[in-house]
Amino acid sequence: MAVLKFDEVPYEKLKEGLQRKIIHTNNLMTVLIDFSDGPWDERDAPHSHPHEQISYVAEGEIIFYCEGEEDQHLKAGDMFSVPSGKMHTVKLLTSKVRLIDSFNPLREEFL
Amino acid sequence: MAVLKFDEVPYEKLKEGLQRKIIHTNNLMTVLIDFSDGPWDERDAPHSHPHEQISYVAEGEIIFYCEGEEDQHLKAGDMFSVPSGKMHTVKLLTSKVRLIDSFNPLREEFL
Repeated sequence: MAVLKFDEVPYEKLKEGLQRKIIHTNNLMTVLIDFSDGPWDERDAPHSHPHEQISYVAEGEIIFYCEGEEDQHLKAGDMFSVPSGKMHTVKLLTSKVRLIDSFNPLREEFL
Repeated sequence: MAVLKFDEVPYEKLKEGLQRKIIHTNNLMTVLIDFSDGPWDERDAPHSHPHEQISYVAEGEIIFYCEGEEDQHLKAGDMFSVPSGKMHTVKLLTSKVRLIDSFNPLREEFL
């Protein structure tokens, strides 16, 4: 699809407190992720993927953890990047957080 | 760089009313663009690039024009995509607009 209008496309609910909407081209995918179960006592389990990732914090505050990097306290307006294969995760510091995650290549498992 | 903290990285000013901040990995680039000279009477000149693009409207309202597609009125929370080589542009409908533009491959001319 050429556009994703927020009000017209339903969320895909992954679990309680975690919903997303996805748009993609051939080699680029952007995932709008809305978390609503923060703040968290613990960070989520770290994970990795071969895809490169860049994320924009659209709402809320998080701690971003990336293998080999200093932990980073980020808030709305900040961005973070994840190189291919690096372990990473986040911890929510606010009740609601929106991340705009972009990936290359496509996360085929999300389709 | 692994993160871009909005308050710590200065804007790159392109012209009056148009400033940006950029983060990238090897094959993925995300550009935070803040427009402050809207609303516009006319759309900007259409342009194209071989890079695929996905944009998130973080603030404001725009009309998004893409070759071969219906014009789209978009607002904060909406997203749009641009296939490789397609002519596209926007028109600002509000005084301030923030777009989060992601590209694959890198826009080398932005570095």
